[in-house]
Amino acid sequence: MSLPVSVDAMGGDHAPEAVVAGAVMAWRAGQAVELVGDEARIRPLLPKGVEIAIHHTTEVVAMDEPATAPLRSKPQASVRLIFERVASGAACAAVTCGHTGAAMASALKELGMLPGVQRPALVALVPRTDGGRLVLLDLGANVDVRPELLCGFARMGDAFARSVLEIESPRVALLSNGEEEGKGNDTVRSAFPLLAESGLNFVGNMEPVGAMRGGCDVLVCDGFSGNVMLKTVESTVELVSRLLREEINRRTSARFGAWLIQGALRRFRLRTEEQAAGGAVLLGVNGVAVVGHGRSDAVAVAAAIQHAARQVEVDLMGQLRGETANEP
Amino acid sequence: MSLPVSVDAMGGDHAPEAVVAGAVMAWRAGQAVELVGDEARIRPLLPKGVEIAIHHTTEVVAMDEPATAPLRSKPQASVRLIFERVASGAACAAVTCGHTGAAMASALKELGMLPGVQRPALVALVPRTDGGRLVLLDLGANVDVRPELLCGFARMGDAFARSVLEIESPRVALLSNGEEEGKGNDTVRSAFPLLAESGLNFVGNMEPVGAMRGGCDVLVCDGFSGNVMLKTVESTVELVSRLLREEINRRTSARFGAWLIQGALRRFRLRTEEQAAGGAVLLGVNGVAVVGHGRSDAVAVAAAIQHAARQVEVDLMGQLRGETANEP
Repeated sequence: MSLPVSVDAMGGDHAPEAVVAGAVMAWRAGQAVELVGDEARIRPLLPKGVEIAIHHTTEVVAMDEPATAPLRSKPQASVRLIFERVASGAACAAVTCGHTGAAMASALKELGMLPGVQRPALVALVPRTDGGRLVLLDLGANVDVRPELLCGFARMGDAFARSVLEIESPRVALLSNGEEEGKGNDTVRSAFPLLAESGLNFVGNMEPVGAMRGGCDVLVCDGFSGNVMLKTVESTVELVSRLLREEINRRTSARFGAWLIQGALRRFRLRTEEQAAGGAVLLGVNGVAVVGHGRSDAVAVAAAIQHAARQVEVDLMGQLRGETANEP
Repeated sequence: MSLPVSVDAMGGDHAPEAVVAGAVMAWRAGQAVELVGDEARIRPLLPKGVEIAIHHTTEVVAMDEPATAPLRSKPQASVRLIFERVASGAACAAVTCGHTGAAMASALKELGMLPGVQRPALVALVPRTDGGRLVLLDLGANVDVRPELLCGFARMGDAFARSVLEIESPRVALLSNGEEEGKGNDTVRSAFPLLAESGLNFVGNMEPVGAMRGGCDVLVCDGFSGNVMLKTVESTVELVSRLLREEINRRTSARFGAWLIQGALRRFRLRTEEQAAGGAVLLGVNGVAVVGHGRSDAVAVAAAIQHAARQVEVDLMGQLRGETANEP
């Protein structure tokens, strides 16, 4: 049997229940998984006949603790041990829905960085209007960046799109407030010529509208703007769903109509949610690391595990090593 | 009769047709308006009995011209003359759906800045999940900012929320990638203590999700992030509408259901679009200036005109003068 995905059973708003349930779903779908956390709490949640190993630890990093907690006061924290399992070759990938900062610090400590990488970046997939998916990075690992860092993110995003999305020559764009060269803030304006000479398939500056309509495959930005963009997508989906529900509830015939289209509404929700459900990937560390949403339910946890397994399957690390080796 | 709103008939993707039609709608609703542009093209578009004065000029700034065109090569451009009309006291406010940069340069030249303002900012209203509206600024007038500028934006946003939205003590927040103090990029972290001591009702850092759920009334940010956030809201509304339509079209019963809820869908579209339709307001210049979306149709143009008239009615300028006079 192949190496398991190591899952932080104690991370997330609904841990360990939702995490264990998600791990069971993934296991039933044929994915090897293991759980790291408090055995006394995890064991009772495992149904009979489900063979998922538990690596016991009682140390947990709470959401209000500093990101450095697993490095300083809690070296046995579940969020750190999952990366240790990958580093030691006992697991193929690590998944947590807990403290993002603590996960990043632990991943860096245990896995180290790929050669040539200056700073890791968080990447996620955003649904596009044309049915494709947009590789968006960085999402908050680096809020203040130099232009050279954006080039590094572009290379990693390119490798991600090649391997995970199987796009041969991903179109890479810089997030900006206008499409013309010369638009953007100081960092974007300085990064533009670097990307133009990078050898990547650089298509220039792009606004969120153009990118979400399918104008590029990889959208590169600093972690502050990327975080704003990702969170705004989430908020707007919530806003639109709420407004639509309100409008529908106003009239009885509309409510009957809503009942008739409820399957469509359900599929629509699944479709917009499933992308986010995969969680963010920490690119640039020497191993596959997925950070799911804190509020992940069992389905989202299972999706994050599959997302991690998929990266192992397509050899994302090999692709990244090839790509980042080209960096100066 | 009260002073007219001066409208740039030649600005926007559908000018002059959509602009003239929008001006006629506003005039029929009782609003005094005037049109600035090519009389030979505007006159045939005015229905009989509609009394809208035309101020003739043939100079127009195209979207691909530099923002400085109305100051250098085209001093008689329609986008500049509307502000001259306000400056001379002939009009109460100016509206254009044309070149944002050219509009800003012209407004600054003709109207000058309010005392105490360091830099003008673009502000717009974004719908919130709780039914309220979020005052978001800056939207792109200043892509690289110092922390002190964010404080100035906060004061102007506060004045806008007080007068236009009639909120007694607007809750002001800083756009950030996390709610705790210490989150954010360098600029946000430096602006936090300044805002805490500003005397405004500062509620701290806020992410897009918290702000759009109603956690604040005014969300302050640099023009780059604000532009990303506003454009992402627009793109996501488009994305969700598209995905939902696709899901609905899959099955016949769903299509029948969609027919039953079509009134709700129409009202929903109006509600999400009407906010943007008002256009962005250029705050900080000495006069009311509204910059509508380039793709505005007649309804959006009429909304932008009403939006401008509303600011005159509630004396936004008086409120801003009182607020910005407090600045150091």
